[in-house]
Amino acid sequence: MVYIKGYECTICNSQYEVNEKLHTCPKCGEKGILEIIYDYQKIKSKMTKSYFANCTDNSMWRYHYTMSVEPGLRSKYLRVGGTPLYKAKHLCDIMGFKKIYIKDEGVNPTASLKDRASAVAVADAVALKAAIISCSSTGNAASSLAGNAARIGMNTVIFVPERTPEGKLSQLLIFGAKVIVVKGSYRDAFEMSQKAIKKWGWYNRNAAINPHLVEGKKTVALEIAEQMDWKVPDWVAVSVGDGCTIAGVYKGFHDLLQLGIIDRIPKLLGVQSDGCSPFVNAYVKKQKIEPTEENTIADSISVGIPRNPVKAIRAVEKSGGSWIAVSDHNILKAMKTLGSNEGIFTEPAGAASLEGAEEALKLGIIKPDETICIIATGNGLKDTKNALEIAGKPIYIEPDMNELIKIIGK
Amino acid sequence: MVYIKGYECTICNSQYEVNEKLHTCPKCGEKGILEIIYDYQKIKSKMTKSYFANCTDNSMWRYHYTMSVEPGLRSKYLRVGGTPLYKAKHLCDIMGFKKIYIKDEGVNPTASLKDRASAVAVADAVALKAAIISCSSTGNAASSLAGNAARIGMNTVIFVPERTPEGKLSQLLIFGAKVIVVKGSYRDAFEMSQKAIKKWGWYNRNAAINPHLVEGKKTVALEIAEQMDWKVPDWVAVSVGDGCTIAGVYKGFHDLLQLGIIDRIPKLLGVQSDGCSPFVNAYVKKQKIEPTEENTIADSISVGIPRNPVKAIRAVEKSGGSWIAVSDHNILKAMKTLGSNEGIFTEPAGAASLEGAEEALKLGIIKPDETICIIATGNGLKDTKNALEIAGKPIYIEPDMNELIKIIGK
Repeated sequence: MVYIKGYECTICNSQYEVNEKLHTCPKCGEKGILEIIYDYQKIKSKMTKSYFANCTDNSMWRYHYTMSVEPGLRSKYLRVGGTPLYKAKHLCDIMGFKKIYIKDEGVNPTASLKDRASAVAVADAVALKAAIISCSSTGNAASSLAGNAARIGMNTVIFVPERTPEGKLSQLLIFGAKVIVVKGSYRDAFEMSQKAIKKWGWYNRNAAINPHLVEGKKTVALEIAEQMDWKVPDWVAVSVGDGCTIAGVYKGFHDLLQLGIIDRIPKLLGVQSDGCSPFVNAYVKKQKIEPTEENTIADSISVGIPRNPVKAIRAVEKSGGSWIAVSDHNILKAMKTLGSNEGIFTEPAGAASLEGAEEALKLGIIKPDETICIIATGNGLKDTKNALEIAGKPIYIEPDMNELIKIIGK
Repeated sequence: MVYIKGYECTICNSQYEVNEKLHTCPKCGEKGILEIIYDYQKIKSKMTKSYFANCTDNSMWRYHYTMSVEPGLRSKYLRVGGTPLYKAKHLCDIMGFKKIYIKDEGVNPTASLKDRASAVAVADAVALKAAIISCSSTGNAASSLAGNAARIGMNTVIFVPERTPEGKLSQLLIFGAKVIVVKGSYRDAFEMSQKAIKKWGWYNRNAAINPHLVEGKKTVALEIAEQMDWKVPDWVAVSVGDGCTIAGVYKGFHDLLQLGIIDRIPKLLGVQSDGCSPFVNAYVKKQKIEPTEENTIADSISVGIPRNPVKAIRAVEKSGGSWIAVSDHNILKAMKTLGSNEGIFTEPAGAASLEGAEEALKLGIIKPDETICIIATGNGLKDTKNALEIAGKPIYIEPDMNELIKIIGK
């Protein structure tokens, strides 16, 4: 059973009843992304501390009282969520943080945070008896949709831009998705998918359109809070593409605050690559979002026209947070720092969060005595080509001890 | 506190006290691999059903009473184990199994089952105050060692054969390991590592030498049993390289039987590629293990001279199980079948287990009414090159709806 009151348009604030099956606001069209409104009073009596103490489900459905979709038999799905939160002592020593935590989303079933949204989409599609689910994606949303849908026996049509890395492409194809590579940018792939979804009536898993997906993504924030025993960090840093993930992170903490489980929302640090930073540009110039180039190796956040600007901007603003852009070179360096000091191999978009936090600390945006949590959004194995650029080189030798002695020393 | 009685040589059966710090039998040399003997009477009073009901640790250290190494503060390590066990209904429909389960080891921190052994090695090395850990590996053992050691701040020297896939290599380097690529086969890499470990006094993480590592690997069996509510399947299928993993699987079930928690040990199906099948050859020809070529795409099990033959052969024999070899082509087909029907993307060595089980069913080795569990040993993202060979092709189109209509239909 779900505890939704209804939907509210993020643009015109119109409210809609729960029994109207909507994705976007009928008045504002595709840009009128909806927010799901919960009945927190009812949830309060369910999601208590003793509920958590006794709950044996370690997947994201552990938080089902604050979710908008009911999955039915959970064992039919991939097990999403329940990812580890690591206290990263070595990074404190190196970077000067007081306390820093890494949320490793790369150990989700298809190796990214996007599994949280895709699992919700698949559960909703099952409830609606959809035959096909579709989305456009820079990679992670697509592979997570393909994997989660395959598990439940549902077909997928996935639109990806040309630059999708091999690792992500191989996942899609192994999961049996029909993969359409659109010769063009992410925006071309997105527009093709929207047209196709409309024409053929497929279930729409585009996160910026479908309001349920943010409700899946937000479980990462609920988990962080619970893993920190409901004492949330001062900051949470997350890289931003379309804007849905950071919106989800905000919503998760917002829910917990409404429920009286936490006493404040962490400040959110939105991180982008300086090769593709429409949010940061708008923040710095105090103007509306303008389309930018998509010129970054962090493919998961290479989004020149973000599809969920309203929710993302509000999330950072309401949390009292900030925006920052970092260079691709520094993202790769952060990837190596995280891997070699904490044993966590994350994709460029994950490393961007760490790099953003380090630079925010240097700039005084993050204060030296503040605690921070980094969301490592996906597994580095998804994009080994970029990793190999910064990783260093192996040493090649013949099977001969004398060669080895030259390298190691006597 | 650990509940070890002592060590027993797998060759000459000599017994050694727990306070002798041994890796192999002093009488038999390097081939005298030791078995760790537990005090099951003492463990019985600890590892009860109520212990499991109240234990909140979902990592492999949940089973610490039957492990030979004590990690100290667990939060300092990567979170290893606690991987999902999926009931795979679609595979039953396709392959004719009565009931089949998939243990997805690819969601471990460095994306393979080997994390279980490496975590134990690192904990032991910490206890022994070692400065450097070393191993030779076809890939997974190496990357798991590098990641688990990085997390704890310990240096690693890793010897790999030339054919190591890019995904595994990128992991090693990102984790900051000193990587020595030995121009030659796995056996060349292994021999170089043994010489170097001896010369420089490094901690030895070669699984076939260090008896503690099987004790980490066995936790996969303990988890499977617990996840099935202690009603174990008739068969467990696992691919075999050196032989340590299947030995660990046996040991895990053996422990549970000694503790009276389960009532029988599942039959073990040892699966190899027909391009590198020393165990299967020995089984079929009823003779000793002979070195073979290492001619398979399943790099994790491409081991021409297995280093742990005694434990592996005994494991299969004592369980009443069997051996089977499958072709690389069929391994890749099984990879696609598993991915597209269950949403699990496993590496070739993981898919080999599934292919072996299917062929064993066709041959009548596995009976139609028997239940089976497949161990998917590692994540498919580690080796996307091979995956792309079988995965199928994406469809490339211009951003033009007319092109799409040609593909999807009206």
